[in-house]
Amino acid sequence: MDMQKYNELKMRMARLADLGAATGLMAWDQQVFMPPGAAETRARQMATIGGMLHEMGIDPALGTLLEALNGQIGDLDYDSDEASIVRVNWRDYQKAVRIPPEKVAAFFGAVGIARPAWAEARAKSDFSLFQPHLERLVDMQIELAELIGYESGNPYDALLDFYETGLTYELISGVFSAVKPQLVELIHAISQARQVDDGVLHGSFPQDEQLALGRTVAGALGYSFNHGRLDLSVHPFTSASSHADVRITTRIDETFWASSLMSVIHEAGHGIHAQRLDPNLYGSGVSAPGLSVGESQSRFYENVLGRSRAFCAWLLPRAQEAFRGRLDGVSVETLYRALNRVQPSLIRVEADEVTYGMHIMLRFELENAVINGQVKVADLPQEWDARMEQYLGVVPPDDAQGVLQDIHWSQSPMGYFPTYLLGSMFAAQLWDTMQVERPGTRAEIEAGQFEGITAWLTDKIHRHGGKFTFPEIAERATGHPPTSEPYIAYLRAKYGEVYGL
Amino acid sequence: MDMQKYNELKMRMARLADLGAATGLMAWDQQVFMPPGAAETRARQMATIGGMLHEMGIDPALGTLLEALNGQIGDLDYDSDEASIVRVNWRDYQKAVRIPPEKVAAFFGAVGIARPAWAEARAKSDFSLFQPHLERLVDMQIELAELIGYESGNPYDALLDFYETGLTYELISGVFSAVKPQLVELIHAISQARQVDDGVLHGSFPQDEQLALGRTVAGALGYSFNHGRLDLSVHPFTSASSHADVRITTRIDETFWASSLMSVIHEAGHGIHAQRLDPNLYGSGVSAPGLSVGESQSRFYENVLGRSRAFCAWLLPRAQEAFRGRLDGVSVETLYRALNRVQPSLIRVEADEVTYGMHIMLRFELENAVINGQVKVADLPQEWDARMEQYLGVVPPDDAQGVLQDIHWSQSPMGYFPTYLLGSMFAAQLWDTMQVERPGTRAEIEAGQFEGITAWLTDKIHRHGGKFTFPEIAERATGHPPTSEPYIAYLRAKYGEVYGL
Repeated sequence: MDMQKYNELKMRMARLADLGAATGLMAWDQQVFMPPGAAETRARQMATIGGMLHEMGIDPALGTLLEALNGQIGDLDYDSDEASIVRVNWRDYQKAVRIPPEKVAAFFGAVGIARPAWAEARAKSDFSLFQPHLERLVDMQIELAELIGYESGNPYDALLDFYETGLTYELISGVFSAVKPQLVELIHAISQARQVDDGVLHGSFPQDEQLALGRTVAGALGYSFNHGRLDLSVHPFTSASSHADVRITTRIDETFWASSLMSVIHEAGHGIHAQRLDPNLYGSGVSAPGLSVGESQSRFYENVLGRSRAFCAWLLPRAQEAFRGRLDGVSVETLYRALNRVQPSLIRVEADEVTYGMHIMLRFELENAVINGQVKVADLPQEWDARMEQYLGVVPPDDAQGVLQDIHWSQSPMGYFPTYLLGSMFAAQLWDTMQVERPGTRAEIEAGQFEGITAWLTDKIHRHGGKFTFPEIAERATGHPPTSEPYIAYLRAKYGEVYGL
Repeated sequence: MDMQKYNELKMRMARLADLGAATGLMAWDQQVFMPPGAAETRARQMATIGGMLHEMGIDPALGTLLEALNGQIGDLDYDSDEASIVRVNWRDYQKAVRIPPEKVAAFFGAVGIARPAWAEARAKSDFSLFQPHLERLVDMQIELAELIGYESGNPYDALLDFYETGLTYELISGVFSAVKPQLVELIHAISQARQVDDGVLHGSFPQDEQLALGRTVAGALGYSFNHGRLDLSVHPFTSASSHADVRITTRIDETFWASSLMSVIHEAGHGIHAQRLDPNLYGSGVSAPGLSVGESQSRFYENVLGRSRAFCAWLLPRAQEAFRGRLDGVSVETLYRALNRVQPSLIRVEADEVTYGMHIMLRFELENAVINGQVKVADLPQEWDARMEQYLGVVPPDDAQGVLQDIHWSQSPMGYFPTYLLGSMFAAQLWDTMQVERPGTRAEIEAGQFEGITAWLTDKIHRHGGKFTFPEIAERATGHPPTSEPYIAYLRAKYGEVYGL
C-alpha cells in the first residue's frame, strides 16, 4: 500500500473527526447546558459546520485517494486496521457522495422547522400541526433514496442501509416475522398470569439520591468518569466527542427510581462501548459502530445484565444505602420481579423487554409503508392506533401518546427504529456466547465483579469501533450471523419463570 | 462598493465566526465541565480547528477580496458597518497572514498540554512542573513575534499589538510610569492611615447562597440569563460563542463573600458587553472589542459602579436577605468602607482598586523582560517575589500565591495583562463623561435602576463590538483620547475620603 497516500487519508479523516467532535459537543451542550436564547445562533453554527463536514467528506480528492488505496488492500489482512480504514471509508464515501450538499442542507433546513412543529404538535396532541412538515420530510427522503439508489426495488432499503450497512426491508422483515408471533403469544400468556408487584420501585426518591446511585452503578460497570460525565436532559442520550470524552445523560422521575437507573445503565452501555474504542482508531473514520451493534451494548447492560437476578443481588444493598430506609426488608426476588414486570403500554421508551419489540415492529412497518406510498402521512395516526390495539391491546387516548411520542421522524430520515430491536436480539446472542466462554459470569455479576464481562465485550465489540459490519461483528463475536433464536429463547425462559408460565 | 464582493466577504466571515464559536464552546467546556481524561484529545481537536480557522483567515482569496474592497470604502462613512467591516478585517488579515498555520497549530497543541500542567503545578505549588511548558511557550512566542514583525526593535510589541491594535511597550510604559509614582504615594499614605475594618465580609457563607446573590446582582445589572449562565471554574472568565450565548464563571471562598460577588460583577460586565453587541455585527469579523475596551466594562461594573457608596445602599438589603442573619445591623457606610479596603496582598484578582495597578505593572515588566531575554523563565519566581516585596511590601510564601496564580501564561501569548490596567483607567474616564451627561446616575444606582446606565454604555461601547480601535472608541465615547488623569483623580478622591487623607 502506498503509505504516503495512506497517511494523507489518515490526516483527512483526523480533521473530519476533530471537526465532528466540535459539533458533537455543541449538540450535547444544546440539550444539557445551553441557555434557551442561544437556540437560533447555535442552529446556524451547527448548520455551517455540518456543511463543512459534508464538503470535506465528499471532496473529490478524497474519493480519488480512497479509490486508489482500495485497489491496494487485497494483500492485507481483512481485519487489519489499515485494510478496514480504507475499506470502510471508501464504502462510506461512495454513499455520501451521491447526496449533493444542497440536498443535505435542504433536509436539515426542513428539520429546523419540522422539529419545533413536532414539539408543538406533541404538546397540543394535534397531529395536523406536524403533518405537512412530515409530508415534506417524507418527500425529501424518497428523493434522497432515489439519489442514494437501491437494487431491491424498495426505496426504504436506501435509508436502512444508511444507518446500518447491508440492512434491507426483506432481511429485517424475515427476522421480525419469525419473532412476531412468538412475542404475541408470550405477551398473551403473561396477560393471563398473575401480575407482578413493582411497588418497591415507587415512592419518594429525591434527584440527588438517584444521581448518586446512578454514578455508583455506572462506575462499577466500567463507565469511566475520568472520561465521562452524567448530567440531566429531557431525553437520555450518550454523546462521544472522542473515546476520551463520552458523556451520558438521564432524566429523573422522583416517584419511580427504576426509570432513571435503568436509563443510566443503558447509556453507560453506550458510554463504555465508546470509551473502550481502540485509541488507534480515533480520528480514522471508523470509530463509530453501526447502530444495531451500538444498541446491542446498551441493551446488554440495561436488560441482559441489569435486569438479571444476579445483578439485583448486587444492586439491592447499594440501592438500600442510596435510599436509606425506603427499601428496608426488600428481598432480591422482589426487586428482580419488579424490574421485570411486563405491562403493555403506550410509550416505547418506557416499555418492558417483552413488549418493546412490538413497538419497534409497528414503526418499522409504518415507515416502510409510508416510504413506499402504501400509507399516507395523513393516515399515520389511525394506522398507529390500530396496530397498537392489535399488537398490545392498548389504544392511545391522543396523538401525543401515540404517533407523536418519538422525536425521530422530525429530525432524521426513517430507518433508525429497526436497529433498536436488532440490537436487543444481538445482546441475547452475545449473552449465550458469553456464558459458554465464561461459565462463571453469573457469579461474577452477583459479586459485582464486572471487569471480566466488560473486558470480554471490549475484546469482541467495543475496541473495533466501525471496522466491521453488523454481520461481520456477529460472526467474529459469536461464530454465527445475527439471529433471533437466542432472543426468543432468552425471553421465554426468563419471563416464563417470572410469570410461572 | 462591489456588493457581490462585500457579500462574499460577509459569507466568509460568518463561516469563520460559526467555526470560532465551536472552539469558544470547547474552551469554555474545558474549564467548566470537561472530564479530566479528555484533556489530550480536546487539545488535539482544538488545535485542528484553530488551524482551520487560521487557514480560512489567511486564505489568499480572502486577502484579494479585502484589498479590493478596502480600495472602495473611501466614500463610505468611516463609522458605518460596511466601512468598518472591510477596514478592520483588512487590518486583521494583514496581521494574521504573517503567521503560518502550522505555527498556530503547534502553539495551541502546546497550550493543550501546558494548561493542565499549570493547574497541577499551582495545585502543588511547584513552579518546576510548569517551567518546561512555559519555556516552550515563550520560545514559540518569540518566534511568533519575529514572524509578525515589529518596527520598534522590541518583539514584545508584536504581541501587544495582537491584543490591542497600536499598543507598544513604549506607549504603555509612558502611561504606566506617569501613574506608578502616584500609586506608590497613595499606597504609602493609606498604609499610614487607620485601616478599614472589613469584618462584615468574612464569616460563613455557603456556596449556594453566594451563587444565588451573584445571580440576583448580575441579572439586575442587565446580564441576561436567557443568553447566559453562571458556573464555577478555577479562574473566573467570560466566554461568548455569540451575542446570544455569553457565559460567565466565578469561584467561591465560603469564608469571604465579597470575593465571588465582585468577580461575578466583573464577569457580568464583560457578559453585558458581549450580549449587547449589535446583532448585525455577529459573524462579521468585527464582533469582538479590543481587550482594553473590554476590560473597561468589567472594571466599570466591578469597581466604579460595584464599589460605589450608592451601589452599596442597593446591595446591602439584598446581601442581608441572601445571608440571612449574618449581616444584620450592618450599615451602608460599613459595607462601603469594607468593600474599599486597601491592603497590599498577594493575589491580583483579589487586589483592591489601588494596589491592583502595581500587580499589572509587575507582570508587564516581567513579560517584557522574558520576551527580550533579560529574565529567564526559570528565574521568574524570584523576580516575581522581589518585585512584590518592592512594590507592595508583601512576599508570596509559595509559588501558588506568586508566579503561578494566573492562568494567562499557560494559555495565551504574553501582552494581555497591560490591557487590564488600561481598561481600569478608561472606566474612570467613562465615569467622568457619564456623570456630566447623566447627572442623575448616582440616584439611579442607589435605587437599583441600572437600565439607563447600561443603555448608555451599550450606545457608547457595547453595540460597536470591534468596529473601532481603543483610541477611536475613547474619542467617540468621551471626546478625548485614552488618558490616565481621570483614573488618578478618581482614586485620590475616593480613597482620600475613605482613609481620611
